[in-house]
Amino acid sequence: MAPALLSTLATEIIIPVCAVIGIIFSLVQWFLVSRVKLTPDRNGPPSNNGKNGYDDYLIEEEEGVNDHNVVIKCAEIQNAISEGATSFLFTEYQYVGIFMVVFAVLIFLFLGSVEGFSTKSQKCTYDVTMMCKPALATAAFSTIAFLLGAITSIISGFLGMKIATYANARTTLEARKGVGKAFVTAFRSGAVMGFLLAANGLLVLYIAINVFKLYYGDDWEGLFEAITGYGLGGSSMALFGRVGGGIYTKAADVGADLVGKVERNIPEDDPRNPAVIADNVGDNVGDIAGMGSDLFGSYAESSCAALVVASISSFGIEHNFTAMCYPLLVSSIGILVCLITTLFATDFFEIKVVDEIQSALKKQLIISTVLMTIGIAIVSFIALPTSFTIFNFGVQKVVYNWQLFLCVCVGLWAGLIIGFVTEYYTSNAYSPVQDVADSCRTGAATNVIFGLALGYKSVIIPIFAIAISIFVSFSFAAMYGIAVAALGMLSTIATGLAIDAYGPISDNAGGIAEMAGMSHRIRERTDALDAAGNTTAAIGKGFAIGSAALVSLALFGAFVSRAGIEKVDVLTPKVFIGLIVGAMLPYWFSAMTMKSVGSAALKMVEEVRRQFNTIPGLMEGLAKPDYTTCVKISTDASIKEMIPPGALVMLTPLIVGTFFGVETLSGVLAGALVSGVQVAISASNTGGAWDNAKKYIDAGASEHARTLGPKGSEPHKAAVIGDTIGDPLKDTSGPSLNILIKLMAVESLVFAPFFAAHGGLLFKL
Amino acid sequence: MAPALLSTLATEIIIPVCAVIGIIFSLVQWFLVSRVKLTPDRNGPPSNNGKNGYDDYLIEEEEGVNDHNVVIKCAEIQNAISEGATSFLFTEYQYVGIFMVVFAVLIFLFLGSVEGFSTKSQKCTYDVTMMCKPALATAAFSTIAFLLGAITSIISGFLGMKIATYANARTTLEARKGVGKAFVTAFRSGAVMGFLLAANGLLVLYIAINVFKLYYGDDWEGLFEAITGYGLGGSSMALFGRVGGGIYTKAADVGADLVGKVERNIPEDDPRNPAVIADNVGDNVGDIAGMGSDLFGSYAESSCAALVVASISSFGIEHNFTAMCYPLLVSSIGILVCLITTLFATDFFEIKVVDEIQSALKKQLIISTVLMTIGIAIVSFIALPTSFTIFNFGVQKVVYNWQLFLCVCVGLWAGLIIGFVTEYYTSNAYSPVQDVADSCRTGAATNVIFGLALGYKSVIIPIFAIAISIFVSFSFAAMYGIAVAALGMLSTIATGLAIDAYGPISDNAGGIAEMAGMSHRIRERTDALDAAGNTTAAIGKGFAIGSAALVSLALFGAFVSRAGIEKVDVLTPKVFIGLIVGAMLPYWFSAMTMKSVGSAALKMVEEVRRQFNTIPGLMEGLAKPDYTTCVKISTDASIKEMIPPGALVMLTPLIVGTFFGVETLSGVLAGALVSGVQVAISASNTGGAWDNAKKYIDAGASEHARTLGPKGSEPHKAAVIGDTIGDPLKDTSGPSLNILIKLMAVESLVFAPFFAAHGGLLFKL
Repeated sequence: MAPALLSTLATEIIIPVCAVIGIIFSLVQWFLVSRVKLTPDRNGPPSNNGKNGYDDYLIEEEEGVNDHNVVIKCAEIQNAISEGATSFLFTEYQYVGIFMVVFAVLIFLFLGSVEGFSTKSQKCTYDVTMMCKPALATAAFSTIAFLLGAITSIISGFLGMKIATYANARTTLEARKGVGKAFVTAFRSGAVMGFLLAANGLLVLYIAINVFKLYYGDDWEGLFEAITGYGLGGSSMALFGRVGGGIYTKAADVGADLVGKVERNIPEDDPRNPAVIADNVGDNVGDIAGMGSDLFGSYAESSCAALVVASISSFGIEHNFTAMCYPLLVSSIGILVCLITTLFATDFFEIKVVDEIQSALKKQLIISTVLMTIGIAIVSFIALPTSFTIFNFGVQKVVYNWQLFLCVCVGLWAGLIIGFVTEYYTSNAYSPVQDVADSCRTGAATNVIFGLALGYKSVIIPIFAIAISIFVSFSFAAMYGIAVAALGMLSTIATGLAIDAYGPISDNAGGIAEMAGMSHRIRERTDALDAAGNTTAAIGKGFAIGSAALVSLALFGAFVSRAGIEKVDVLTPKVFIGLIVGAMLPYWFSAMTMKSVGSAALKMVEEVRRQFNTIPGLMEGLAKPDYTTCVKISTDASIKEMIPPGALVMLTPLIVGTFFGVETLSGVLAGALVSGVQVAISASNTGGAWDNAKKYIDAGASEHARTLGPKGSEPHKAAVIGDTIGDPLKDTSGPSLNILIKLMAVESLVFAPFFAAHGGLLFKL
Repeated sequence: MAPALLSTLATEIIIPVCAVIGIIFSLVQWFLVSRVKLTPDRNGPPSNNGKNGYDDYLIEEEEGVNDHNVVIKCAEIQNAISEGATSFLFTEYQYVGIFMVVFAVLIFLFLGSVEGFSTKSQKCTYDVTMMCKPALATAAFSTIAFLLGAITSIISGFLGMKIATYANARTTLEARKGVGKAFVTAFRSGAVMGFLLAANGLLVLYIAINVFKLYYGDDWEGLFEAITGYGLGGSSMALFGRVGGGIYTKAADVGADLVGKVERNIPEDDPRNPAVIADNVGDNVGDIAGMGSDLFGSYAESSCAALVVASISSFGIEHNFTAMCYPLLVSSIGILVCLITTLFATDFFEIKVVDEIQSALKKQLIISTVLMTIGIAIVSFIALPTSFTIFNFGVQKVVYNWQLFLCVCVGLWAGLIIGFVTEYYTSNAYSPVQDVADSCRTGAATNVIFGLALGYKSVIIPIFAIAISIFVSFSFAAMYGIAVAALGMLSTIATGLAIDAYGPISDNAGGIAEMAGMSHRIRERTDALDAAGNTTAAIGKGFAIGSAALVSLALFGAFVSRAGIEKVDVLTPKVFIGLIVGAMLPYWFSAMTMKSVGSAALKMVEEVRRQFNTIPGLMEGLAKPDYTTCVKISTDASIKEMIPPGALVMLTPLIVGTFFGVETLSGVLAGALVSGVQVAISASNTGGAWDNAKKYIDAGASEHARTLGPKGSEPHKAAVIGDTIGDPLKDTSGPSLNILIKLMAVESLVFAPFFAAHGGLLFKL
């Protein structure tokens, strides 16, 4: 076996350097965003020199609105949103913190008990001729890795939220100068989050590996087994972020819409609506912080899955550090690729008209994918030996470096296909959404029927794309192939997150424009940004789900290897019941989250109605509503309601593994995976389509759209109903499901030593 | 091995005798229903002696409505419905007939090609020391069995439709005498269908086995392999019945409601609505004929699955005819048990008030289950040897007769549990539906969110019930256990179908009362019957889905045995891609059927609107609408639209098996099964719940319900939207899905010899 071209030393340097470049780049982006000033000139009253504090001439003066006041108002609203989001996240983290500590203790106790808390070295699991570190040490290091993953996830989500709330008012102000400027501000802010998260995740993982290695030395089997705790920590935080944030944002959104748009007939984001701040806070804690944690989790898990399989393959056996770090090197190159890609959106081209937004975002996907293909080729040929062996359920399978290159590529390109299909089904530039909008002619019922059918249909191609990726990567390199395919899909995560975070930032910018009483033209621009953002949000969810499917399969495979089962035969009763019950879990989980949103929204509706009825002058805009109570309702509801679905996901693997054993648990994981993916994709796309069908009628940009409008017409009302139904589907239950399937898989993997040793109590009795 | 107590001769007598008793009983019920006269006394004008042609005094005289005219009007409407239904079914059968012939040729060619159309005897597949009949003979007999199954299915559906359209006006007329009389008429008519279908299915299968045996002699392996064609024929007819009928009924229903109830604000079933006859025809072709074909298919398939496994177990090897016929004997006893059970509803007790309907129907389920448990015990102990062996993927597994008894029982009782859970989630007597109704306060959006959540939640317990049945029966008797568990669930099919068919009959009776202009009190009674009918329809669908899950698993197991694969390991790429694509198929299929209903409904809406706009005096009731055009629209739409989903289901196993081979096909079957069951249950229950939530507000029977009503209030309008969305879910896509999973499995089984010999072309290249 020829050694890799890249030396160990070079690997040790390249990875942290790329991570640091990513962090610096994101700070530069932050700096550029911060140049839009939210504090007006101190030199007294409204500056009449045509400047707004930014070193540029205003393209458009606000009519009738004092420039100085607008800036102050925007700053005020931004502060309210930022404070609401921060306070929610802190409350959430308090509860999650308790959970983390309890779960960390559980991990330590379960894993420590595998060898009866013995401090003696033991025979290795896979290579019994070698001695490995005691199970107790792996328990301790897994626990540390778990906490590290959780904290990194929290930081990722929190920083994302901070930059988003920092950027939204700035985007609004930039919209005065034109849609291009606003786009750049929103996109840069998204990029800050994307790069921070990708670089941070890589750096922490890299440091953890190096620190753990000080203890583990040559025992890489134990080392990378302990490292999987990092994935578990990341994903369990993501669960609460997605579910809690998802319930928060949709309770506020649905509640605000039901009273505001439907009953009181006031526009979205009208400052008279008491739930409007809660709604905007929700975008930041759900779509930004939740999404950030989610994708960080996917990233951490796919890296861990690849590492754990590699550690028992020839990379690990021969202590080939560069090849071991192949997953990290792919991510490192990904950061550089995304950096170049970002410049295409912010510097190389300029957006001048609204129609260009969508295509600019689409180009981001294409450019990053093409560049990344080259990047992967380079990494594969310099970091890998020309041939090597990969552990494949008990046997070592020979793999060539070009095969591994294809595995990563197939994941990367499958991601692009999923992105395009999602765009086709959720953007109102294409016929599917236009058909849904058209069905509003006959009322809300046909709108819902067509929307559901669209969501179901949108599953077909993504599933084929995932299936082909799985087949190719599985055939070439078994579970390692799947893991790197997932990494391939996530290798452009910085760009993916940038265009994803861009959506809620634009949404908030529109909200702020409305609340600050800015002119109709500004609102039109932010609406255009937001419509493109809806589609990118759907694309982001598509990526999240597609990568989740691959990641879970890789983790599942690693679990099966670690648990020491040779096959997962559907035609054994233990496995089959697992399979069918597993396929049911996404439904159980969705039932909980949908109902939670519904109930919380009802509470919100009551409060908003109460304020409209009891606060004199509110409807006339003379009195200020009590935003805080609405924020509190959303906060309380989401904290309370995230516990049952969270418990379902976290406890299922523990209960099934402990009582029914690893075969049934394998069935559960496979069932949840194949069923959950479908539910998640269809829910996300249905919701996205309804939202954009409504926006299609709102905007009235075509002859066809105008026959359905204007706002307030019967078809428009029907479209609003669909939009409201879609909210919990696309922002709560749908995206939470990918965490369900990933988290159960990674949790099973972490606890595999325990299940293998002590699991299946019920059948043993 | 001790022989069975029951001699071969006794078995040969008992089965046909029970079948004939079932047929006679159903004729008696038909006779009793026919005593309600639809032709008024010839002795001239309205009889004033208080008789309506039935030998009984009228409890209530219609006020202001001439008795004579009412009867004539009812008869007229009934004729129109019956003619519409007959004409649709004949059109459907023409198309399906072509398909049948083509598919029969395909079966013959595919199976004949296995041994290259050789007419020589060959070594048996399982016992290679024996000689079996040539593959060409099995091809020919499979084709015959296929046609036999298809024809029996057509007859079952057609007769069911006939009796239903015969009974609906009679139920209306009886409603004048009180709710009890109307209930008995509707229930008896349902029983006619239930018993005819159960007895017919049994008798044809029994005769086919005996006739085929004349050729096959001692080659039972070939004999029962050929017999599986019967199941395929039954199910492929059911596919078109369910899908075509489902699209028909919901296009008409949704179309009628959207214009009638929503736009024109006229009541349901108002004779001024041009789509009203099409709507009522739809109930008979979809809910009656479709459901009949569906359950007949399940019954035929589970019998075939059990027989084919038994033929290679000790029953078959030792030519123990009585034990071979165990599945048929269970069904035979089932007919007798259901006969006794029916008398409890029609003769032993009398319903006096509305509230008793629901509990009377519930008692039917309980009584039949309890009695059947005793029946199964008897059959198990007299027809089976105390111990025997069952073929279990290559090995013979020892099974005791009490274990088989438990297998059948667990299926039977799981059916009861599924029935009760379905009732709990779809009846408006319980809190889930009341919560959904309550959510209408805040509009259609929350209604839909809560309804979807309810449907998801309603999946949990049925899946556990199915999982437990599978585990118990699988552990005891492998695939044979699963097959007899399915038979156990279906053993009370006569009662199940009776209470199921009762629903649409009552629904039609209400429609006729409305159209004939009968008084409000009559309509209230038929509405009460109908509300109970909605729940029983949901229960029927629950049974159909539960049994479909077990049946498909049994067929799947038989397929795997026949295809000669030893395991279906999820962790091989070929199987996993099958699994994930299979899990996607229910979504693809639902997308097609939902969209079909939507499009057909839009056409119907246009036509109904056109008639209201162009026929002068229609709204005032002065002119008659053009019912025929609406019937034609539904007919054309359903014939055209049933082809793509039909093709998806029929072609998938052929394409996958031929090109990807049996492993991938196994994955597809498992994936479709575990995912389809969830989608089907949730769709059916969501739809049922919305329908009954609307009825809950309509009826205003409680303090809570009155705060939501009356008809025309905002919450009521929201409830109507939910009801309309639920229509295609509960009557088209949901129930069609169980055919998808069953049919793909039985088709794979029938074509297994071909796939095993020539399949997997793509991987061979």
